[in-house]
Amino acid sequence: MKLWILLLLILSFILHPLPSSSSSSLFKHRLLRAKASSIKQTEPQISYQTRFFQQNLDHFTFNNNPLTFPQRYLINTDHWNPSSVGPIFFYCGNEGDIVWFAQNSGFLWEIAPLFKAMLVFPEHRYYGESVPFGSKYVAYNNASTLSYLTSEQALADFAVLITHLKRNYSALLSPVVLFGGSYGGMLAAWMRLKYPHIAVGALASSAPILQFEDIIPPQTFYDIVSNDFRRESLTCFNYIKQSWDEIASRGQTNDGLAQLTRTFNFCQQLESAEDLSGWLSSAYSYLAMVNYPYPADFMMPLPGHPIKEVCRRIDGGRPGTSIPERIYEGVNVYYNYTGEAKCFELDDDPHGLSGWDWQACTEMVMPMSSSPDSSMFPPYEYNYSSFEEDCLKEFGVKPRPKWITTEFGGHNIHATLKNFGSNIIFSNGLLDPWSGGSVLQNISESVVALVTEEGAHHIDLRASTENDPNWLIEQRATEIKLIQGWISDHYQKNKVIFDM
Amino acid sequence: MKLWILLLLILSFILHPLPSSSSSSLFKHRLLRAKASSIKQTEPQISYQTRFFQQNLDHFTFNNNPLTFPQRYLINTDHWNPSSVGPIFFYCGNEGDIVWFAQNSGFLWEIAPLFKAMLVFPEHRYYGESVPFGSKYVAYNNASTLSYLTSEQALADFAVLITHLKRNYSALLSPVVLFGGSYGGMLAAWMRLKYPHIAVGALASSAPILQFEDIIPPQTFYDIVSNDFRRESLTCFNYIKQSWDEIASRGQTNDGLAQLTRTFNFCQQLESAEDLSGWLSSAYSYLAMVNYPYPADFMMPLPGHPIKEVCRRIDGGRPGTSIPERIYEGVNVYYNYTGEAKCFELDDDPHGLSGWDWQACTEMVMPMSSSPDSSMFPPYEYNYSSFEEDCLKEFGVKPRPKWITTEFGGHNIHATLKNFGSNIIFSNGLLDPWSGGSVLQNISESVVALVTEEGAHHIDLRASTENDPNWLIEQRATEIKLIQGWISDHYQKNKVIFDM
Repeated sequence: MKLWILLLLILSFILHPLPSSSSSSLFKHRLLRAKASSIKQTEPQISYQTRFFQQNLDHFTFNNNPLTFPQRYLINTDHWNPSSVGPIFFYCGNEGDIVWFAQNSGFLWEIAPLFKAMLVFPEHRYYGESVPFGSKYVAYNNASTLSYLTSEQALADFAVLITHLKRNYSALLSPVVLFGGSYGGMLAAWMRLKYPHIAVGALASSAPILQFEDIIPPQTFYDIVSNDFRRESLTCFNYIKQSWDEIASRGQTNDGLAQLTRTFNFCQQLESAEDLSGWLSSAYSYLAMVNYPYPADFMMPLPGHPIKEVCRRIDGGRPGTSIPERIYEGVNVYYNYTGEAKCFELDDDPHGLSGWDWQACTEMVMPMSSSPDSSMFPPYEYNYSSFEEDCLKEFGVKPRPKWITTEFGGHNIHATLKNFGSNIIFSNGLLDPWSGGSVLQNISESVVALVTEEGAHHIDLRASTENDPNWLIEQRATEIKLIQGWISDHYQKNKVIFDM
Repeated sequence: MKLWILLLLILSFILHPLPSSSSSSLFKHRLLRAKASSIKQTEPQISYQTRFFQQNLDHFTFNNNPLTFPQRYLINTDHWNPSSVGPIFFYCGNEGDIVWFAQNSGFLWEIAPLFKAMLVFPEHRYYGESVPFGSKYVAYNNASTLSYLTSEQALADFAVLITHLKRNYSALLSPVVLFGGSYGGMLAAWMRLKYPHIAVGALASSAPILQFEDIIPPQTFYDIVSNDFRRESLTCFNYIKQSWDEIASRGQTNDGLAQLTRTFNFCQQLESAEDLSGWLSSAYSYLAMVNYPYPADFMMPLPGHPIKEVCRRIDGGRPGTSIPERIYEGVNVYYNYTGEAKCFELDDDPHGLSGWDWQACTEMVMPMSSSPDSSMFPPYEYNYSSFEEDCLKEFGVKPRPKWITTEFGGHNIHATLKNFGSNIIFSNGLLDPWSGGSVLQNISESVVALVTEEGAHHIDLRASTENDPNWLIEQRATEIKLIQGWISDHYQKNKVIFDM
């Protein structure tokens, strides 16, 4: 069996590492998710106006015909205090359609009335409808049109938009609170370091700002995913660990591939066993992220504790059931919990996350390995050279693996945050594989870590449910209290009288 | 007499506002300085290696053929402690030839042995020999080639170079101290806010980080220049104030222009009275900046207290001496103190500062007015529209007047520096017209203002002389003490044993 390359991430509300068997096929299947057509998204009761703000495509150069693009943002001022000093809750849009994020950030919608806050959900450049060059097709065409898709440009978009809104609403004294999950959480935290004058605080949920260079061990991510399965069932863990060889061996013949195609119910014939392995790895990683304690529909409609259910099905096959058949039963929970999908397709991207490939190949270089001892994934040792080669092949672009830590810091993040940061909540659930790259310790009185044992990927940003466990209710209450503190401080410093 | 437009700055070690009578002639004479050929520059005893580091021309975009440019830097490791934890003194190069800055920053050379420090003088992109596109001629050709000349790109250059040097010298624990004067001081201060993880502190000398938008009154700069003259002599002040009308009126005929050309000893016939007025205003502004208490040769070789000498000559004309003749006698001190210039030429730029025009027309938009009441310059009310028009004419580029405060803050700089800054010295001399746009009050225990009544433009960065007044000796001693404190803190935090 070939070594697998576990390196490409789709980092979104949900960050997704993609195993692939060969460098050549690495980028072909960037989002290996089944198309389960006609699955309904449950939409929370949210209402907003959709607006567009014309942004400079390049904030850091000047030209005689500067390109611009329309940045979409959703805005709700229903609860905003008309005295113009009410807070502005600003969600740092990440790599996908902003409507989807707004729908999955119920926490903000729930607390806005309490704070009399304005809600703003700006879309990240190059995602959703916020694309330059008139269309996504042109914007994603090549390295030259993609070149402005960077986190620094996105942060500058936020700074410019906030400045514009405060001016337009005569809200110069309104405190701005940043929110973000996953990559959006990274942006929210970085915004505190790079634009401290723009906002008063940030809730950075599941923000792996340390997942760069050698700051954390590269096997961290896959170890956590694997542990999430092992804690449910050691046999389940072992079935998965054994499955890769079996799939690879079957995939060596056309007959074997045809059989796998049937076993896993793909609409089209599989081209390689690696495609299947990528599809499975993707499901396991996502499952670890959305391993919520109640039924939810974020990436996919899923039951509560979905890994428990996956393992129940993998373990539960009748004696004599082959490992691939067991695995199929398991991942069916992820890809087809509602049972509506007739068959599966690779390469589907309903939330428009594909721009992350470019970001991962330029500045968001996150080394990831899979340990032969502790991981249930195929062993893989991170190799920067082959990663670079892949990026050159796919985009003609050479990554800058040390750029993020130069620009934002990271190696000595505790000192940096302690001395220069304030009012940041790093919230993490330890079931979330991205938690290993985040900040898990309190740094100072105002830079705090909220860590929950049973939490998954930015669960705190989701709407509350009747099934919320106590630890989640308490976590959100703490967040509200901390945010209230930031805002009160701001009012006190600026001698504003405002009744929250 | 027409209104004058006082707006274009050549901000260098010395920042220079340029009066010009009409928008059309505004950019033609960006650096109105006489060529006094064969004036020798006194060079301090400095020795260094000259090196080049290949920098990305654009740090904030990624492309398949990223442009790079060779950034020149001067380096001296003679005194650097071989244990690899000795400090790195990093001069934030500003808008001119770095050799010239290194020669005029004797303070760093003098204290390096005391601190066992490495000295690094990186050149600012687009100046000196650090030009992209192979030559200054091409680099300055149009808005497209100039587009990467911004402060954000320059700061990223510094961050990347420092990171590279620390790695190359195995000096990861070496504390980096930033130094800078004028625009370089702004860069040093901003570096503390934007890249707090890169250095431990900054001496920002004469750094007018508040000279933007409406943060300070627009007449501040010219009021300080004017006061510098008035405090020496009210009659001198009045002669200058009266001179503009007389020059303008004479300049309306060809005969008058010919006469002015003779009076002011220009090598070529003056084309307009405005050229002359710009040349004079430039001299007054520079004189206010380099109004040092001892003879110095920075922009020009000058006596100590040069304004006193200028006014002595303006006032001292025999009865019946015309105002233009008096003025000529005065500015002769500035343009030809050594008496070596046979005649004067406009439009000379020996230190290569002309890139500032581009910077002033893009992000460094500093509103300046001249008050009819308090200024000795022709009255002028800052008008952004006409400024924008001029920039569009000259470069085809539209300035972004609110960008600097969005990117770096400014309106509430005390709060920003207090909450997010540390280890910054803002040193200013009140004779310096740029002091009005700088930070003149202590902000916190570690963000301090050193203000001297009799100081001029970043005098503290210059080499010590036998004639240094006590206040200057004390100021430098305080700076050394503060820097020692930053470094000791750093060693203590990192448990480094290093004997300074």
